[in-house]
Amino acid sequence: MSDLPSWRDTQARQAIVDFVQRTTTTGSPEFVAAGDRIAVFDNDGTLWSEQPLYFQFLFALDRVRALAAQHPEWKTIEPYKWVIDNDMKSLVAAGEKGLLPIIAATHAGVTTEQFTDIVRDWLADARHPVTRRRYDAMVFKPMQELMVFLRANGYGTWIVSGGGQEFLRAWVEATYGIPPQQVIGSYAGLKYVTGDRPSIMKTEQPELVDDHAGKPVGIQRFLGRRPVMAFGNSDGDFEMLEWTTTGEGPRFGALLHHTDGEREFAYDRASMVGKLDRGLDEAAQRGWVVIDMARDWETVYPEAT
Amino acid sequence: MSDLPSWRDTQARQAIVDFVQRTTTTGSPEFVAAGDRIAVFDNDGTLWSEQPLYFQFLFALDRVRALAAQHPEWKTIEPYKWVIDNDMKSLVAAGEKGLLPIIAATHAGVTTEQFTDIVRDWLADARHPVTRRRYDAMVFKPMQELMVFLRANGYGTWIVSGGGQEFLRAWVEATYGIPPQQVIGSYAGLKYVTGDRPSIMKTEQPELVDDHAGKPVGIQRFLGRRPVMAFGNSDGDFEMLEWTTTGEGPRFGALLHHTDGEREFAYDRASMVGKLDRGLDEAAQRGWVVIDMARDWETVYPEAT
Repeated sequence: MSDLPSWRDTQARQAIVDFVQRTTTTGSPEFVAAGDRIAVFDNDGTLWSEQPLYFQFLFALDRVRALAAQHPEWKTIEPYKWVIDNDMKSLVAAGEKGLLPIIAATHAGVTTEQFTDIVRDWLADARHPVTRRRYDAMVFKPMQELMVFLRANGYGTWIVSGGGQEFLRAWVEATYGIPPQQVIGSYAGLKYVTGDRPSIMKTEQPELVDDHAGKPVGIQRFLGRRPVMAFGNSDGDFEMLEWTTTGEGPRFGALLHHTDGEREFAYDRASMVGKLDRGLDEAAQRGWVVIDMARDWETVYPEAT
Repeated sequence: MSDLPSWRDTQARQAIVDFVQRTTTTGSPEFVAAGDRIAVFDNDGTLWSEQPLYFQFLFALDRVRALAAQHPEWKTIEPYKWVIDNDMKSLVAAGEKGLLPIIAATHAGVTTEQFTDIVRDWLADARHPVTRRRYDAMVFKPMQELMVFLRANGYGTWIVSGGGQEFLRAWVEATYGIPPQQVIGSYAGLKYVTGDRPSIMKTEQPELVDDHAGKPVGIQRFLGRRPVMAFGNSDGDFEMLEWTTTGEGPRFGALLHHTDGEREFAYDRASMVGKLDRGLDEAAQRGWVVIDMARDWETVYPEAT
């Protein structure tokens, strides 16, 4: 129990600990060489919360508000005016596609170094609308412990997220102990700008949407091999778990089921954010572990600081 | 001397050893934390030979010949017919652009796993037209030793090559000790194919040309930070060395100058392959070390096996 103190002693915890033991014990028929021990983690809803909206989207809305003074024209142009007017109804109705201009306006046209500073400054000041916590204090303590446990057993821990790669890199090393080169996320273009002080600009050119079938593609692009373990929480992670668990040899897939409306948020099949439907239907037949937050976790968030 | 036995005791070797010592000695004013110690290496002409043509291009020509029986139409279609007729003059005249169909026909439409097997089978059988060696026996022993030396001092070693990412991954772990997730190369699209046996197909869609300004872009995409050391040999590596050595703190850039027509090949400013011109002009003012193969290396290739 000492390894995973925020996990209750249930089947989910036992399945994880057993798998790690079987794959790391020399002479075990399921032994996996140290270099092949790779565990991948979705981020939104798997390592931190994602309600009422993906936190990166809340960042983009805050960023529009911060930049509004420099863009007086936004007061009359959709979708920006909805943000300035706090018209959440129109924003939600526009859907992800209708809000792409907001992502472009808040994520491109700056250097990667400038963007990192912007994200870090935002994280330091912003508070979640429901919990009033810092967003990076809404990470899941049991998952932080799990990553430490896996690394102690020779597993490399990687993020494979639909969120933006550079957005994640700005904070995940401090929060999860995952260095920038182990962060796979969605990304748009990059452009090298030479001169006295060379830099790399973020552009609007879409390149990888690291969700659904984009997740195995991102994994192959960055890792060049199938992971051994995969953790997700939504149908956007389905293909990542499928790709991982259909490889030869021992494989492990798990879905975090958000069942805890008291300590976090309860949602699954009908949720607009982090919908989990097909995954729940097929987990048993595919041998995937379903982690039930209310049942399996003693603690959800770290103590507030 | 024991660390780098294939290097002569010249300024180039001394500059490398001094830099590693300054950046890894606790308390040194130029100490670099272990997690930030990243060294990047070009491959063609830096870690293995590249004359008379990039070896991956020779692979593609061999592959056209191997597939010709399945493609009778190739006998009359350019550029394939030039390969089948061994018309090197027309092939060279067509240039890289004219030969793109050959790259597509030999690198796409197969799964990543199939492609890996194809490359490995080719490497096992193919011989270099001049030396009659296996291609992976034309790697530079001093550079292999250098990578071992750097890793022993906590440096991560990464490949940043204009060559194809999946082509490189098929053999660089065995040859250089560099795992697939530390290989940045040029790449086209990948497509996840689900079903009974999920796989990832290589497509023809161009995505990254990891050469010139594409190298800093590839580095940011995969590493998410500036390297501390960079090794190249051609003007295609210029931006990679520039990006690396214009970062704050201690930085190291080196260019391998192919001066040894007896033991390898001698070429620089006028070469079609691996042209080194601007790099030679600017190395001194930029503080880049020029490694002179004839002068600085005791050994070039490993002993033939």
